[in-house]
Amino acid sequence: MKKIILLIFLLFSQMSFSQNLKTDISGTIIALEKAALEKWNSGDPSGYINLSAEDVSYFDPSLSQRLDGLENLKKYYEPIKKAVEVHKYEMINPQVVAMQNMAVLTFNFHSYKAEGVSKWNCTEVYRQEADGQWKIVHTHWSFCIKP
Amino acid sequence: MKKIILLIFLLFSQMSFSQNLKTDISGTIIALEKAALEKWNSGDPSGYINLSAEDVSYFDPSLSQRLDGLENLKKYYEPIKKAVEVHKYEMINPQVVAMQNMAVLTFNFHSYKAEGVSKWNCTEVYRQEADGQWKIVHTHWSFCIKP
Repeated sequence: MKKIILLIFLLFSQMSFSQNLKTDISGTIIALEKAALEKWNSGDPSGYINLSAEDVSYFDPSLSQRLDGLENLKKYYEPIKKAVEVHKYEMINPQVVAMQNMAVLTFNFHSYKAEGVSKWNCTEVYRQEADGQWKIVHTHWSFCIKP
Repeated sequence: MKKIILLIFLLFSQMSFSQNLKTDISGTIIALEKAALEKWNSGDPSGYINLSAEDVSYFDPSLSQRLDGLENLKKYYEPIKKAVEVHKYEMINPQVVAMQNMAVLTFNFHSYKAEGVSKWNCTEVYRQEADGQWKIVHTHWSFCIKP
């Protein structure tokens, strides 16, 4: 009987641990993304550069094909510095689906500039590196065409 | 000495196993995606429906926000049946970044219809379920605006 109680206890604590782990990953990743976005919206791409892995890949609507690698991403971001000036932004309905060491964050994003609002879809795939840090391995930004 | 040789052997076999595992995941996922795409391009969304997880999320340019859940995806795909008629398509430069039980596939996609070519970016996030099957947990299709 004692063994059964112990087994049930272990099962529940394992489920609870797994649940907490996923909640923790979700919170960590949304916080990392928000910190990088905050910098981006004041014209500073360093948050995203520091958060991206060496083998990151990247899509956005102004590229004709996927951009591969952190060095290429740095070069691509260079002329964007100081060009971004967002008055207000909203990260809408962020959702994280996570396994132990990989996770995908998705959200809609509205950015308000002098010329009006831009509406975006965003996908960020994160991987936990050997040192425990979460890094972006893939970014996909696109326009919501439908208003 | 024997111990060192054994250790080196184990280390190399582990590296080789890890490499094979990633190559295998990559091959498996590209094959799953191609099979679903093949059906899609003849107006049959069942490949993608069967390949998507219950908690799948989905972005494309004709939606004003993320679509969540397999039931909603089925309803969304319903009127698309038979409407798609692609003469030829190219999956360009597919790349998989994988951990043990989660992987992201990215590629550019050109579809040729009577009215001309459409150029797309595509991100698919796969998760390996308890039964060993790989399922899509997130899809993001967007237009390449740049020609």
